[in-house]
Amino acid sequence: MATISKELANVPALQLAREGAELFEMVSALYPICRSITGKGLRESLRQLQNHIGLSLHEVPTGTQVFDWTVPREWNIRDAYIKDSRGTRVVDFQKNNLHVLNYSLPVKQKMLLSELRKHLFTLPETPDWIPYRTTYYKENWGFCLSQRQLDSRADGEYDVCIDSTLEPGNLTYGEFRIQGANNDEVLISCHSCHPSLCNDNLSGMTVATKLAQQLSAMQLRYSYRFVWIPGTIGAITWLALNESVLPRIKHGLVLSCIGDPGRFNYKKSRRGNAEIDRVVEHVLRHTEDDFVVSDFSPYGYDERQYCSPGINLPVGCFMRTPNGKYPQYHTSADDLSFVKPEALAGSLDRLLRIVLTLEQNRLYVNQNPKCEPQLGRRGLYRTMGGTSGNKLEASLLWVLNLADGKHSLLDIAERSGLDFSELDQAAQALLKCDLLRPLD
Amino acid sequence: MATISKELANVPALQLAREGAELFEMVSALYPICRSITGKGLRESLRQLQNHIGLSLHEVPTGTQVFDWTVPREWNIRDAYIKDSRGTRVVDFQKNNLHVLNYSLPVKQKMLLSELRKHLFTLPETPDWIPYRTTYYKENWGFCLSQRQLDSRADGEYDVCIDSTLEPGNLTYGEFRIQGANNDEVLISCHSCHPSLCNDNLSGMTVATKLAQQLSAMQLRYSYRFVWIPGTIGAITWLALNESVLPRIKHGLVLSCIGDPGRFNYKKSRRGNAEIDRVVEHVLRHTEDDFVVSDFSPYGYDERQYCSPGINLPVGCFMRTPNGKYPQYHTSADDLSFVKPEALAGSLDRLLRIVLTLEQNRLYVNQNPKCEPQLGRRGLYRTMGGTSGNKLEASLLWVLNLADGKHSLLDIAERSGLDFSELDQAAQALLKCDLLRPLD
Amino acid sequence: MATISKELANVPALQLAREGAELFEMVSALYPICRSITGKGLRESLRQLQNHIGLSLHEVPTGTQVFDWTVPREWNIRDAYIKDSRGTRVVDFQKNNLHVLNYSLPVKQKMLLSELRKHLFTLPETPDWIPYRTTYYKENWGFCLSQRQLDSRADGEYDVCIDSTLEPGNLTYGEFRIQGANNDEVLISCHSCHPSLCNDNLSGMTVATKLAQQLSAMQLRYSYRFVWIPGTIGAITWLALNESVLPRIKHGLVLSCIGDPGRFNYKKSRRGNAEIDRVVEHVLRHTEDDFVVSDFSPYGYDERQYCSPGINLPVGCFMRTPNGKYPQYHTSADDLSFVKPEALAGSLDRLLRIVLTLEQNRLYVNQNPKCEPQLGRRGLYRTMGGTSGNKLEASLLWVLNLADGKHSLLDIAERSGLDFSELDQAAQALLKCDLLRPLD
Repeated sequence: MATISKELANVPALQLAREGAELFEMVSALYPICRSITGKGLRESLRQLQNHIGLSLHEVPTGTQVFDWTVPREWNIRDAYIKDSRGTRVVDFQKNNLHVLNYSLPVKQKMLLSELRKHLFTLPETPDWIPYRTTYYKENWGFCLSQRQLDSRADGEYDVCIDSTLEPGNLTYGEFRIQGANNDEVLISCHSCHPSLCNDNLSGMTVATKLAQQLSAMQLRYSYRFVWIPGTIGAITWLALNESVLPRIKHGLVLSCIGDPGRFNYKKSRRGNAEIDRVVEHVLRHTEDDFVVSDFSPYGYDERQYCSPGINLPVGCFMRTPNGKYPQYHTSADDLSFVKPEALAGSLDRLLRIVLTLEQNRLYVNQNPKCEPQLGRRGLYRTMGGTSGNKLEASLLWVLNLADGKHSLLDIAERSGLDFSELDQAAQALLKCDLLRPLD
Repeated sequence: MATISKELANVPALQLAREGAELFEMVSALYPICRSITGKGLRESLRQLQNHIGLSLHEVPTGTQVFDWTVPREWNIRDAYIKDSRGTRVVDFQKNNLHVLNYSLPVKQKMLLSELRKHLFTLPETPDWIPYRTTYYKENWGFCLSQRQLDSRADGEYDVCIDSTLEPGNLTYGEFRIQGANNDEVLISCHSCHPSLCNDNLSGMTVATKLAQQLSAMQLRYSYRFVWIPGTIGAITWLALNESVLPRIKHGLVLSCIGDPGRFNYKKSRRGNAEIDRVVEHVLRHTEDDFVVSDFSPYGYDERQYCSPGINLPVGCFMRTPNGKYPQYHTSADDLSFVKPEALAGSLDRLLRIVLTLEQNRLYVNQNPKCEPQLGRRGLYRTMGGTSGNKLEASLLWVLNLADGKHSLLDIAERSGLDFSELDQAAQALLKCDLLRPLD
Repeated sequence: MATISKELANVPALQLAREGAELFEMVSALYPICRSITGKGLRESLRQLQNHIGLSLHEVPTGTQVFDWTVPREWNIRDAYIKDSRGTRVVDFQKNNLHVLNYSLPVKQKMLLSELRKHLFTLPETPDWIPYRTTYYKENWGFCLSQRQLDSRADGEYDVCIDSTLEPGNLTYGEFRIQGANNDEVLISCHSCHPSLCNDNLSGMTVATKLAQQLSAMQLRYSYRFVWIPGTIGAITWLALNESVLPRIKHGLVLSCIGDPGRFNYKKSRRGNAEIDRVVEHVLRHTEDDFVVSDFSPYGYDERQYCSPGINLPVGCFMRTPNGKYPQYHTSADDLSFVKPEALAGSLDRLLRIVLTLEQNRLYVNQNPKCEPQLGRRGLYRTMGGTSGNKLEASLLWVLNLADGKHSLLDIAERSGLDFSELDQAAQALLKCDLLRPLD
C-alpha cells in the first residue's frame, strides 16, 4: 500500500486531466436530480455516489428532536407546471427543477395571473436566470422563473399544479469512514440538498467522493470521516446524533463551491489558529499565485453549526468563489457550463496536499541538539567549503534547529518560509540516520 | 425613568442645536472669571455650575500634605495694571485677566521699562496674542501682553501694580456623584483652573456639567463621579483624599479641549487596552470619518496623575485638538470665537454614546450553544430560503456564536466589525426569547 | 577608573579616526598570513593579537571528541605552486595563499593540464578574482585561480606541488575574559580561520580585540568573554569544553563582516526577542539612517552553534553586509581595498554603545508612585507654567511613570520612542534625589 506522500509526489498532468473529466462526469450525472433537505432526490443522489465509494445511507425519522430543531416531514415531488389557457406548459418542472419553490405544498387549481403573482419569484436584474428559492420551515408554495418568462405572460387564467407530498418520512444523509492508524479523525463535510445547481454544491459532493476514494487506497495516520448532509438541518442532525464522536475530531473542512474557475477562498474556523487553518493557508501559499484567507464569520455553510460555541470544532470552509460572491450563485446559471473539470481536479489536488500536510505534521526531537551534527560524514552536506548550500541543506538545518519537541514541522515551515514538503523530506533523511526521533 | 439606550436612540438634530447653544452660553458666562488653582475665581466658577447640577464644593486647607505635594496658599487678585507716565493703563487686568502672570505676588512700584522687561512675557510669533503663563510654585510676579503692546511702549518710567494676595486659605474642587444600580464607578474629570481660556478648559467643565445633568435623569448600571479640579495639584489632592474610592473606579475619562471644531483625539490610558480605551475607539470608529487614537504618554492633563504607577486607573483623555497642537493654545486667542456650539454638542453626544456602550457592554451566555437555535420559529429569521440575510440576522448570529461567557458584547463588536448598538439590539431580542442569559 | 557611560559620552571624531587607523593597521598586519581551522597560521595570528590584549591561547589535541565531531588533524603548509614547462610558477601560493585549496593534502607530481583541471577552481563570472575554497573534512587537494589565469594556460605538462602536512597536532583558539562586578557574562565571538580575506573576518577579529582593550579600562557590571575561534569546529569545540560556563552567558554577539562600508545588518538570536536583540535594534535605530534587522536562520556564522536547540544562547550576529550578499565574498577581492578604517571604527563605536546599553539596562522602582512627585522643588522642572516641557522633562516623566519594577529602562525606551541614553540620564537624576531605586 503506497504512503500518501509517495502517492502525491508526482501527480502527472494527465492524471489531473483524467480526474477532472471523471469529476465533471459525476457532476453531470447528478445535475438533473431534484434534491432537497429530505426526499427521494437526496436519497437517489447519495446512492449514485455509492457507485464510487461504499458510503452508508442513514435515515432519521421525521419528528426526531435534534437540539433546538425537529427533523421535518419528508418532501417529494413528481411534477409541477403552470399551463396557459391553451394547455401549454409555460413553466415546467420537468425542464428545470429550480422552477418549483423547494418544499412547496401540493397545489392544483386555476388562477388568474394577478392572483398567481405573489407565488412567483424572479430575478429582474438577470432576466434570463431562474432563482433558487426554498420554503423549508414555512408552509407555502410557489414557482421560480426567469423575468423574461414572466414578462411574456399575458393576463388571464392559468392552470397551476404542484404534484408534491409533505409527509412523515426520513431525513437522509451519507457517511463514509476510513480507519487510519489512530482514531483521531478528520471530518470532511458537504451539503447535498441543493437541486440543479452545480458549483453549489455538486462540486463539493463529487470532490469529497473522489477524495474519499483516493484516501481509501492509502496508509493514513488519521481516520477520515466524510459526511454528505442536507445543509443546516443535516449538520444539526448529524451533530446531535454523533456527539460521542466529536472529541475525536481533530480537524475538519466544509467543502463548497469548488468547481468554478475562481481563486481559492478559505474561511478559517472559529478558533482562527487551528492546525487546519494553518495547514490550508500554508498549502495555498505554496501552490497559488492568488488566494484569500478570511476570518470566521457565523454565516455561510455548515461551519456555522460545527463552529457554534457549544460544538466549536476546528472546522474551516474550503471554497473557490464563495457563496454570494458570484452572480450565478443560487440561480439556474450555476449550471454545467459554470463548473470546469480542471477546477474540480485542482480542488481535489489541493485537498490531497492539505491531507498530506496534516498527515505529516509531526513533532520531532533532534537527537544531537548541542551544536550541529556533522552532516558531511552522513552524506548530507557538501564537502567543498566556501561555496553556498543548497535548498536541502537549508531544510536540514531548519529542521535540526527547531526540532526541539515544541515546534511541529508546520511551525518550522511557517518560521523558515520553506515549503512543508521540502522540510518533510529533510526530516525523513534525518530520521534515517537517527538524528531525529518523532515525539508523537 | 427612561433607560439610557432609549434616551439616546433618536437624538433629534434640533436637540443637538439646543444643547450646543446652552453649552456655549455656559462657556460665555464663565469666560470673564479669573480662575487659578485656588481662590475666589475658581470657587465662583464652580458655584455657577451649581445652577445646573447639585455639585458639592470641597475646601482643602493650605498646608495639607497630599502625597509628595503641599496644598499651596490661596491666591486672590483684585486688580493689576501697568500705567504710563500719563496715568493711562497700557496693560490692564480688567480688560483681560491673562495679562497677569497667574499667581503673581503683589507689587506696587514705579519702574523703568528696562527694569520691567524681565517681568514681561510676549509671543513674538503671534504678535497680537497674549500668552497664558503661571508661577504657581515659584514666588514671582509678571505681566503677559501682546508683542505689539510691548513694541509700542517707549522707554521711561511706568507705574506697576498687582493687587493680589497669597495667603493661607483653601484649594477648592467640585464633585458630583450619581448612584447607579451598583457601586462600581465611572470617573469624569476636568481641570477648572485656567482663567479666560475657552477650549482649555471651559469646554470640558461645561460638557461635563451637561453630561452629569443628562445622566442624572437616567437609569444606570454604573455610578458616575464627576470632579472639577485645578490641574495637577487638584488631581493629586483629590486622589490623596479619596484613596478608598479608587478600587471602585472601573473606567474614567479626563475631558479637555472639546469645544474646537477639530477631529476627536483620544489618548489611551496607561494600560492601553482598558475597556474604556476600546469603548472610545469603537464609538469613534462608528461615528467619525476621521479621528485619532494615540498611546498613553505621561504628559498632558490629569491622566498623568490618574495613570501614575501607584494609582494606575483605567483613565484616558478625551479631546478634540490636543494641547499644544493648535496655535491658539495657552493664548488669548483661545477665546469665545474659537469654540463652537456644534463642537460642544458633538462632544457631549459622543460622551453619551461612550457611556451607553459602557453601560450595555455585558457578558452573555447562549442558552442553546450546540448548533444554531431555530430563529425562524421565533420570528427572528427570514422564511424564504436561498435569499441573503439582513443586518439584524448577522448581528443575531454573531451574538449567538460568541456569547460563550468569555466574549463581551464589545469583543463581539470588535471581532464582527458591526456596530455595538446593533449587537445590543440583537442581544435584547435574544434575551426576550430566552436564548441568551446575562452572565454578570 | 571611568565608568563606561562617561567614557562614551563624547567620543571625539579625532579619536574615531585614530581608532579606524589602528584597526586598519591590525587588519593589514594579519592579512598575509595563511590561516586555517588549525595550524601555525591561526596560532601566529592569535599571537599577533596578544600585542594588544592579554588573550590566552588554548590548544585542543587532534582526536578530541567534541559533541558529534572530532578535532581534525593539524594542517600546515609551507609552499604550493604550479610550474609550467619552463619552470615558471604560473600559480603561486607565495603570491596569494587563496591559491591553495585550504586543507589540501601534499602533492608533488607532473600532470597534464587535462588531468589537473578537476583540481582547479575558478570564478568564471568574476574572471580576475581567485575563489576561496576549503576541503576540511574530505581528503583532497587543489588550486584556486582566476579564470583569466586558467584561460591563459596552454595544454601540456605542469609541475604541481603542495608542500603541506596533515598530522596529529592541535586546534588553537584564543580567549580573553574581563571580570565585571558580577559573574554574568557577555560573549563576543569571531571566527579566525579564514586566510587572506579582510572583511570575512579580519574585521571581526580586530574589532573584537579593540573592544576588549577598551572594556578592560572600564568599570563594568557584566563580565565579558571574547573568543577567537575557527568557524564551526572551533565554536563546537569551545562549547563542548565550556559547557559549565554557558548558564552564565546572558547575552552574546558573533562579529563578522564589519569592515565594509555597507549598512549594518543584525541577525537576531534564535529566541528572537532576547535582550541583546532588542538592545542592538534600539542602538541602530538611534544611530543609523538605514539598517536591517532580520530574523534568525540556522545558517551563516557560529550563531548556528550558539543557537542550536540544545545550547540556545541569546547570541545574535552583528554584521555590515552579510555573507554572500557582496560579490567580493569568499574571493581574493575581499582584500585591503574592500575594508575601510571608518567602517571598522564605526562598528567598534556601535558595539560600545550596545555594551553601554546592556550595562545600563536596569529595573528601577519609583519611590513616589502615587501621582507625580513635585519635580520643581528638586530643580528638575521648569518653574514657569503654561510653557512646553523639554526633552529631559519628558524623559523624567516616562521613567517615573513606568519605573514600577516591571519595565526595564529598555522597555521604557521602546515604549516612549526616546533614546536610551536620555532615559538613563533621567534615571541618574532621579536616583540622586531618591525618587528612584534600582531593583536589581
